[in-house]
Amino acid sequence: MSLKNSPACVEFRGSPDGLKRQRLFTPGPTPIPERVQTAMAGTPVYHRGPEFPALLRNAVQGLQEVYPTSCDVFLLSCSGTGAMEAAVANTLCAGDRALVVQAGQFGARWTDLCRAYGVEVVERAFPWGEAVDPQVVAEALRDDPGLRAVFATHSETSTGVLHDIAAIGETVRETDALFVVDSVSSVAAHPLPLEAWNVDLAVTASQKGLMLPPGIGIAAVGPRVWKAYGRSRLPKYYWDLEGYRRSMAEGRAPATLPVTLLAGLRVALQMLREEGIPRVWERHARHARAVRRSAAALGLTCFARRPSNALTAILLPESVDGLALMETMRRECGVVVGGGLGDYRGRMVRISNLGHVDDAGILEAVGAFEAGLRRTGWEFEAGVGVRTAQHVLTADC
Amino acid sequence: MSLKNSPACVEFRGSPDGLKRQRLFTPGPTPIPERVQTAMAGTPVYHRGPEFPALLRNAVQGLQEVYPTSCDVFLLSCSGTGAMEAAVANTLCAGDRALVVQAGQFGARWTDLCRAYGVEVVERAFPWGEAVDPQVVAEALRDDPGLRAVFATHSETSTGVLHDIAAIGETVRETDALFVVDSVSSVAAHPLPLEAWNVDLAVTASQKGLMLPPGIGIAAVGPRVWKAYGRSRLPKYYWDLEGYRRSMAEGRAPATLPVTLLAGLRVALQMLREEGIPRVWERHARHARAVRRSAAALGLTCFARRPSNALTAILLPESVDGLALMETMRRECGVVVGGGLGDYRGRMVRISNLGHVDDAGILEAVGAFEAGLRRTGWEFEAGVGVRTAQHVLTADC
Repeated sequence: MSLKNSPACVEFRGSPDGLKRQRLFTPGPTPIPERVQTAMAGTPVYHRGPEFPALLRNAVQGLQEVYPTSCDVFLLSCSGTGAMEAAVANTLCAGDRALVVQAGQFGARWTDLCRAYGVEVVERAFPWGEAVDPQVVAEALRDDPGLRAVFATHSETSTGVLHDIAAIGETVRETDALFVVDSVSSVAAHPLPLEAWNVDLAVTASQKGLMLPPGIGIAAVGPRVWKAYGRSRLPKYYWDLEGYRRSMAEGRAPATLPVTLLAGLRVALQMLREEGIPRVWERHARHARAVRRSAAALGLTCFARRPSNALTAILLPESVDGLALMETMRRECGVVVGGGLGDYRGRMVRISNLGHVDDAGILEAVGAFEAGLRRTGWEFEAGVGVRTAQHVLTADC
Repeated sequence: MSLKNSPACVEFRGSPDGLKRQRLFTPGPTPIPERVQTAMAGTPVYHRGPEFPALLRNAVQGLQEVYPTSCDVFLLSCSGTGAMEAAVANTLCAGDRALVVQAGQFGARWTDLCRAYGVEVVERAFPWGEAVDPQVVAEALRDDPGLRAVFATHSETSTGVLHDIAAIGETVRETDALFVVDSVSSVAAHPLPLEAWNVDLAVTASQKGLMLPPGIGIAAVGPRVWKAYGRSRLPKYYWDLEGYRRSMAEGRAPATLPVTLLAGLRVALQMLREEGIPRVWERHARHARAVRRSAAALGLTCFARRPSNALTAILLPESVDGLALMETMRRECGVVVGGGLGDYRGRMVRISNLGHVDDAGILEAVGAFEAGLRRTGWEFEAGVGVRTAQHVLTADC
C-alpha cells in the first residue's frame, strides 16, 4: 500500500486543540528547560544583596566556557540588538570608517547601527543565502587602510548561513582594525574561539542557544577594545562598557539586570556544562543535519550555501504558501517555526534547533513540517521526512 | 513583666536557616505573585507569531490605566535607566540646554545622562531627603527661556521622597520646555496623570510596583515629544522611539522583547485591575504609613520630608551599624531591605512596600526590622513597632 499523500496522514488527530502543547522551533525565543523555568520562578535575587556577585561571576565563567574565550564578558539588560549597539558605541567616533560584511537582515543591522551613529560604512553585501567571501574582506581592507573596524555575523539568522569567521578573522589580523562579530544565534551551536579567530568583540543574547527567555544581552570584550574605547567619542551611558568593567570588578552591574533570567542562566549553564560544551556543539550539528537531510528527502532546497547548525532555512516551492504552511503546523501540531524575513516572507521556513531541543523534538519539528507540507499539495513519499531524520539521529555520524 | 529588650525576643528561633523564606522589601526587585511566576514559566510566546500583538496591546492598555494616561506607551528590553536614556536621546540635540531638578541618586542620573549626550545641564540640586521646590523650578525656567526640557523624578528611590510633579508641571506648562519624569518607583504606588500634570514623557520599569522581575523598561510618550523628536539629532538606534511607534502600530517591536516577562505583565496588570487602580494606590499609602508610624514609634526618623508611598527611608541612630542590622534581618528573618546609597551607606534602611506585598507582609518587614534593631542595642519598648503597624493596618484610616 502506498502512503503517498494519503490524506489520513495529514493531521495529528489525537490531540484536541486544548491538549496540544506549543513547541518552539523558532530561532529565538527557544524552548526553556523545566529546571530553568523553576529557577526563574523563585524569589528574585536583590542585585545589591550578598548573593548577587556570585550569580554574576558564575554567569561570566559559564559564558567564557561556552564561547570559548577568556575575554571579559558583560551582561546587559537588553536584546541582542542592544548588545550590538554597545559594540558600536564603545569603539568608534562619528566620521570613522568601518567595514560591514553582510549577507542578510541581521548583518545589514550593523550598517544601520553604524550609520545611526554617524560612522561611515564601507559595505560588502552578498546575496541572501551566500556566505561572505573572506577574499573580498581582505581586498576591502587592503583598499582602505583607514578602516577602524570590521563588523560581521557568525550565524545569519535570516538565511541560516554560517559565515567563516575564522577566515575573516585571519584577514583582519593583518590590519589595525577591530573585529566585531554578531554571534547572537551561533553561541552554543558553534564554537567561536575569540582569541584563536582574532575576534575582539562578540555579542549574543539569552534567547537562543543558551536556553533562556529573551532579556539578557551579552558582550565578550577583548583587550584591544579598551584601546578603541579610549579614543571613542560616541555618546553612551547605558551602553558604557567601562562602567560595566568597573562595577563588575565589585560583582555589581551599573544598571539593574534581569535577575530572574540570571537565576535561570545559572541553571542553563550548569546543564550545558553537564552535557559538555563540545557535545553541545555536536548536538546542534546532528540536529541541524537531520533537518537538512529531511528537507532534501522531501525534495526541498536548503537556502544556505554554508549552513549554520543553529537553524535551517528551507526555500519553499512556488506552489507552496509558506504562511499557510506555518499556520497549519502551528494550529494542528503545535509546532512554531520561523518564517522568511524581508523578500522571503511566505517563501521560506526557518526551523531552529536552538534551545532545549532533544532528538525526539527534531522528530516533532520534521513531522509537523511534513504534515503541513502534504496539506499544500507538494508531493513526496509519505513519512520520508521523519524517516530520514530518524536515520540521521540514530546513525553513528 | 517588662519585655523591654528581653534577649529572648530578638531572634525568630522557630525557623532553621533552610526553612526560612526570603522576603523582598527592596525597592526593586519586589515580590512576584505566584500567578505571575506561573505565567512566566510557560512556553515563551514567539514575538513574530500570532499571539504577540494582543499580548503587547494588553500591556499598553494596562499601563495606560495604571499611570493613568492616554499617551503612547512603549515597552523596551532594558532597565529603568535604559528608558531614561531613550527619553534623552529622542528629544534633544547636543548643545541643547536642559534643566535637571533633583535631590538624590536617581535624580542626578538625569544630569549624567544628559551630559553623556553633550546636553548642557542647568541643575537645581536639593539636599538628599528634601523635595524639589517648584518655585525654584519656575525661577530657573524664567531665567533661561532657552531650556528645551525639564527632567525630574517622581519618587526618588534613594531618599524615599515624593517630588511634587503636579506643581512642577504647572510651572513647566508656561514654557515651551518638555517635561520628562522618572516614575520608575512611583508607578502603581502613586497616580501620575500625565495629561493633567503636563508630563510629556514618563519612564518606568517592570521590577517595582508592577510586581514583575526586572527586564522591561517603559516609556509613556505624549504628543509634544514627537515634535521634539523631529528636531532631535542625538544618535539612536535601539532607543529610537519612532521605530517603536511604527512597529507597535503592527503589534510588533523593533527588537526582541522579554516575552516571558510580558506574559507575566499580562497577569500582573490583570491583578492590579481586579484590585482596582485607586485601591492599589490606597494600599501603597496604607502600607507606607504603617512603616513610617512604626519607625516613629521605634524612636527613629523618616528621612523624607515629603515621603513617597513606594518606600520608607529610615535614618539610623549613629550607634547603629546599618549594614550589620540588614545582615541580621536577612539572616535571621529572611527579610531583605534596601540600604542607604552613597553617603548614607550603613546609615539608613530603605523598606519598600512595592510589589506583591499584603498587610501581613508589612508585619513581617516591621517585625524583622524591630528584631534586628533590638540586637543593635537601640532601646525601645518591645513590640511597639509591630503593634503600631498592626494598628495602622487595621484602623479605618
